[in-house]
Amino acid sequence: MSDIPLSQHPFRVYPGQSVDLSQWPTTDEEFFPVNKTRGKDLLKQMNLQIDALQTLFYAEGKHRLLVVFQAMDTGGKDGTIRSVFEKMDPQGVRCAPFKKPSSLELAHDYLWRIHQQVPQNGEVVIFNRSHYEDILAVRVREIFPESVWSKRYDHIVNFEQMLTDEGTTIVKIFLHISREEQKERLQARLDEPDKHWKFNPGDLHDRALWSNFMTAYEDIFAKTSTNAAPWYLVPADRKWYRNLIVADIIIKTMRGLGMSYPKIDFDPAEITIAD
Amino acid sequence: MSDIPLSQHPFRVYPGQSVDLSQWPTTDEEFFPVNKTRGKDLLKQMNLQIDALQTLFYAEGKHRLLVVFQAMDTGGKDGTIRSVFEKMDPQGVRCAPFKKPSSLELAHDYLWRIHQQVPQNGEVVIFNRSHYEDILAVRVREIFPESVWSKRYDHIVNFEQMLTDEGTTIVKIFLHISREEQKERLQARLDEPDKHWKFNPGDLHDRALWSNFMTAYEDIFAKTSTNAAPWYLVPADRKWYRNLIVADIIIKTMRGLGMSYPKIDFDPAEITIAD
Repeated sequence: MSDIPLSQHPFRVYPGQSVDLSQWPTTDEEFFPVNKTRGKDLLKQMNLQIDALQTLFYAEGKHRLLVVFQAMDTGGKDGTIRSVFEKMDPQGVRCAPFKKPSSLELAHDYLWRIHQQVPQNGEVVIFNRSHYEDILAVRVREIFPESVWSKRYDHIVNFEQMLTDEGTTIVKIFLHISREEQKERLQARLDEPDKHWKFNPGDLHDRALWSNFMTAYEDIFAKTSTNAAPWYLVPADRKWYRNLIVADIIIKTMRGLGMSYPKIDFDPAEITIAD
Repeated sequence: MSDIPLSQHPFRVYPGQSVDLSQWPTTDEEFFPVNKTRGKDLLKQMNLQIDALQTLFYAEGKHRLLVVFQAMDTGGKDGTIRSVFEKMDPQGVRCAPFKKPSSLELAHDYLWRIHQQVPQNGEVVIFNRSHYEDILAVRVREIFPESVWSKRYDHIVNFEQMLTDEGTTIVKIFLHISREEQKERLQARLDEPDKHWKFNPGDLHDRALWSNFMTAYEDIFAKTSTNAAPWYLVPADRKWYRNLIVADIIIKTMRGLGMSYPKIDFDPAEITIAD
């Protein structure tokens, strides 16, 4: 854990702030001034803290936590989710991946499938991709015209505001890697036979549209990072460091809920359990 | 069908209009200047029109129609739904009743169960009660404080706007009966053994809160009747007349969609079906 509160977090996008991703760091050494060995130890400690917080979260059964992950291909969503949340009790955490919409999903408004997956009381839900693809991919790949996707910023801000008003805490995390780092990671998927399954030739097509994706992401961050549902753009070129930053955000978000174990309406000392 | 377009409908609530339900008619003779016998014939014709429109709607598979019904107890929601929509092909129309929320539903935001039931392409969905109960009943029965329900007007307006932007047509209908008419209908449920099942002693409790319900409804209509999702407050003391007004609204709404049968990409004359 660092001492910097979420309200002053250097990688958070504040309302009204514009974002230039080419200037936003993909590596960092200041937030956690530690080396890799020390960093990995630190993550283990933070995993235990997250586990304890989630046990309390589940026991209290009062809050709902939604963590949204977005990234370019190879950005590290899968690895981050595994590394940061691995200690959580599967009974209280659920991962919701959003891939290409099915024909049934496309026959509804784009938030229909999203809304079905939001957390219930005591539940942590992790979105691996999200409703932001309905602006991002739709815009960059020109699936729908601007008249369609340009209305969706407001839809999403309003949707997230409603969820927040009704008791859901939302954290949105973008794993920010450099174009060079993506090249290395894609090449590794080609070079290593046990990573071939992760390679999708379509990723190269998206890579060719890199600057279009960056522009689309910049608009998303500027328009949808609210106090109710902030975006954190995490330097993600170094995996172990990225995990620390994300774990730190999760811990501070959960601590900020002011949780406590539910009050009991019996006196344990008064209860005798029959032989 | 009357000649009056929906944009000039006398029972529609227009944006910015305030509503006094004590002055809003529960009976009417002007919109359809017909007697009961002629009215029932007229409804049969309109049922056929609705049936034809719905066949086209289903074939086109492009639009989504959501019809919301709200009313005081005995207001006639069930009877209206049966009378107006009975000719529709059940394959393309679905009724979604919203009763007291389950514990699973209560563990989510109140729009979670609502959003799951919205129509898909080519589908007509009828809400028997709706998300408006999450303001109405919650307010009148003091289930949550004002700080909770007062935010829900905006949530709902935004939610309905999103649905509309994404291709759903929304019509909201309040069946407006007088307090005297409710008394007669409740008494009938006590007097007639085959109506006993419809009687719920809790209805008397709500009746005692009549003026609170009227105030809560007035606020709802003033704050949530938009061009995207207008409210129609239908005089409903006379059942046969109420059915005419509702059928007329449905027909005009569906006609307004500018539907056409999908274009075919083959020439029927060129196709030979093998013996």
